[in-house]
Amino acid sequence: MKRIKLQILLTGNELMRGDIIDSNSAMIAQYLNDIGLEIERKVTVADSLSNLIENIVEITKQADILIINGGLGPTVDDLTSQALAQVTDQALIEHKQARQHLEKWCEQRNITLDYPNLKQALLPANAGIIANPIGSAVGLVMNFQGCNIYCTPGVPKELELMMANGILPLIKKQLPSEQHYQVIRSQVFGYGEATLQRLIDEKMPDWPEVIDLGFRAEMPFIEVKLACQQLDHLPLLKATQTKLTDILGDHLLASASDNHKTMADYVVDLLTAQNLKITLAESCTGGMIASQLTRISGVSKVFEAGFVTYSNPMKTAMLDVDTTTLDEYGAVSKQVALQMASGALKKAQADIVIAVTGIAGPNGGSIEKPVGAVWIAWGNNEQLHCQYFCLKSPRIHFQIKVANIALDLVRRWLLNSTELPHYIKNNSASR
Amino acid sequence: MKRIKLQILLTGNELMRGDIIDSNSAMIAQYLNDIGLEIERKVTVADSLSNLIENIVEITKQADILIINGGLGPTVDDLTSQALAQVTDQALIEHKQARQHLEKWCEQRNITLDYPNLKQALLPANAGIIANPIGSAVGLVMNFQGCNIYCTPGVPKELELMMANGILPLIKKQLPSEQHYQVIRSQVFGYGEATLQRLIDEKMPDWPEVIDLGFRAEMPFIEVKLACQQLDHLPLLKATQTKLTDILGDHLLASASDNHKTMADYVVDLLTAQNLKITLAESCTGGMIASQLTRISGVSKVFEAGFVTYSNPMKTAMLDVDTTTLDEYGAVSKQVALQMASGALKKAQADIVIAVTGIAGPNGGSIEKPVGAVWIAWGNNEQLHCQYFCLKSPRIHFQIKVANIALDLVRRWLLNSTELPHYIKNNSASR
Repeated sequence: MKRIKLQILLTGNELMRGDIIDSNSAMIAQYLNDIGLEIERKVTVADSLSNLIENIVEITKQADILIINGGLGPTVDDLTSQALAQVTDQALIEHKQARQHLEKWCEQRNITLDYPNLKQALLPANAGIIANPIGSAVGLVMNFQGCNIYCTPGVPKELELMMANGILPLIKKQLPSEQHYQVIRSQVFGYGEATLQRLIDEKMPDWPEVIDLGFRAEMPFIEVKLACQQLDHLPLLKATQTKLTDILGDHLLASASDNHKTMADYVVDLLTAQNLKITLAESCTGGMIASQLTRISGVSKVFEAGFVTYSNPMKTAMLDVDTTTLDEYGAVSKQVALQMASGALKKAQADIVIAVTGIAGPNGGSIEKPVGAVWIAWGNNEQLHCQYFCLKSPRIHFQIKVANIALDLVRRWLLNSTELPHYIKNNSASR
Repeated sequence: MKRIKLQILLTGNELMRGDIIDSNSAMIAQYLNDIGLEIERKVTVADSLSNLIENIVEITKQADILIINGGLGPTVDDLTSQALAQVTDQALIEHKQARQHLEKWCEQRNITLDYPNLKQALLPANAGIIANPIGSAVGLVMNFQGCNIYCTPGVPKELELMMANGILPLIKKQLPSEQHYQVIRSQVFGYGEATLQRLIDEKMPDWPEVIDLGFRAEMPFIEVKLACQQLDHLPLLKATQTKLTDILGDHLLASASDNHKTMADYVVDLLTAQNLKITLAESCTGGMIASQLTRISGVSKVFEAGFVTYSNPMKTAMLDVDTTTLDEYGAVSKQVALQMASGALKKAQADIVIAVTGIAGPNGGSIEKPVGAVWIAWGNNEQLHCQYFCLKSPRIHFQIKVANIALDLVRRWLLNSTELPHYIKNNSASR
């Protein structure tokens, strides 16, 4: 199969100055990966006409496909159309379709269509138009010295929609007909990449050669990607995913989702479906779990109150933790975690609770209770569980890990899962 | 003055696949900007020897300086040294200095120095070594066809230290002696870029031509950068900064700091210095302010407890908000914000309080109280202030804005500032 050579050209002064970090090219790469294409080279230049022209000429000599990102806006430093017109020796003319798009775009916003915006309809004469469903700048498709050129806007949301709906279908047409790249993605929590690889090696020793396996860290999850290159292999792809699903058990959160759910989303979905209210008693996470839940619109149906009890006296005042228990066992103890949980359940009149107490560090540890030590309690009025972890990470990562493990424990509990998660099984410091 | 031509070459399969987002090149750009240099072009390629060789040859033809990032690690896909050896027609030999560095590095970690790591001492014969104070891979400096090549590791923290301590001093030597680029950065909160520009135009109409002015959004702050190119202009640079400091008043948080403090850091510093304890009563921010404070190590000296009261009954149960007040004015009201503040001060026995109640959206708004409406109360037992805002932003940005404005109001209060912040002055929806 002929390998398609593909390059990206990004333009923007803010990219060259380091004022913004480019996430667009990673997004483009992922869309292309999903149809089995890899990017060979990525070039980034400032908004300069000579730079753009020079690099377009050079890249189109080498590549079958060039995706240009940025430089389609209304201001004087948006030069992509002008550069392409010069490179391809075309006049810049007003395209009717682009003009109508701009008129509609301005009308919806009660803006008068004047020169800066009108510039976005002045495009190389033989350019094809790619729709932009939300932004003012249309995309372009052109061919120059055998290379197909696709021009995309710099605004990430506009780029995303244009890639998915406009450009990918066009590129797919350019692919050899026998090529049928298919991909299944899964979100996994609780395994690292190395452990996942070992697990798969061990449980699936006959991994089919035609199925590609890939991992991508997307904190706190690992995205597992299965892919095949040909239509005949689709049944095998699905069978492999089924087997993988069995092996992963409840470490697998969802398949084929591209909507980037957080752990809090999964928990809120389950709470909503089961009509249950959760409350939180947070010491070392200091409000992070509450904050993750309340980022979700509509969470008020399942969350009424959270307690951030950072000091010992406040654990007593707000959650009725016994001062004698605090004195005897210390704040970072099973006994205190359980009392925090009971206290929060009662005070918030909730169905379900998470309580966490630990040492986020970098200071405050001891030999008995090192930095990273944490007790997580969860459950309801009938049954409370409590688990010790020792998580060695810088403060902020410690808090993020604790918050996600705590939410995962509740997720598993709401699923009535009987499986022991890897992060408990592997928890050598377990008490 | 001759303009120095500078390019960056990044290598990494994970960059090409979009598995990680490149922040290294933005960091390099900022270091270079600080000495007055701009990057002309940035090329990113996968870990392939032929790709690396081809691009090194091409770039060194065009540029005076090439910074290569990545490919210095111990694994087989780390190919930078090998590519440079081929390009410059040098043998790969073991460098004594690099070997000693690796021995020390392994010794500190109780690791045996074996082949994969030893590979990091095999470097082109005529390469100079740049120290890596924390990682195993040393940096390299070479010259090829008149271009100075600097090789840096892909791990961001290692890159940062090497840029600051190793490479910038070397590049500075390459600069014309009359060039003395000096920069002063300031963190500003409460003005947008456009407003800042208008303010400066208006208050400093005689802006000196030799002083460059730049803005960079670094949420929630705007970084204002003043720079000059020559040593003679240094007094003028300082005088301009003094004038700017006067104009910005307490909207200016700090100057010349490169340690990326958050708004919570500024507040915790002031609370610590004044030996005061803060508490929080959060509704629409749902624990975000607590979470921002507790990311800071040592915050326990100034923060004991926070209340996340998301529902009306919990505002009453946890903070003694009157049910009649809730019925009469609604949860998003001045009266409720003030009662939340008083309740939290009493329950947490704190010196200072922030209380917030608002409508984060996207649902739950009305004509009287639209999405984005929020009351923020702050102060102590002697005096509570309360301010209305209507902040039109998507849910998560609304929460971030409210959290930062609330913290800024306390910061100003702790500073005894009498200045009216722009975001209140400009608050047309003020009540």
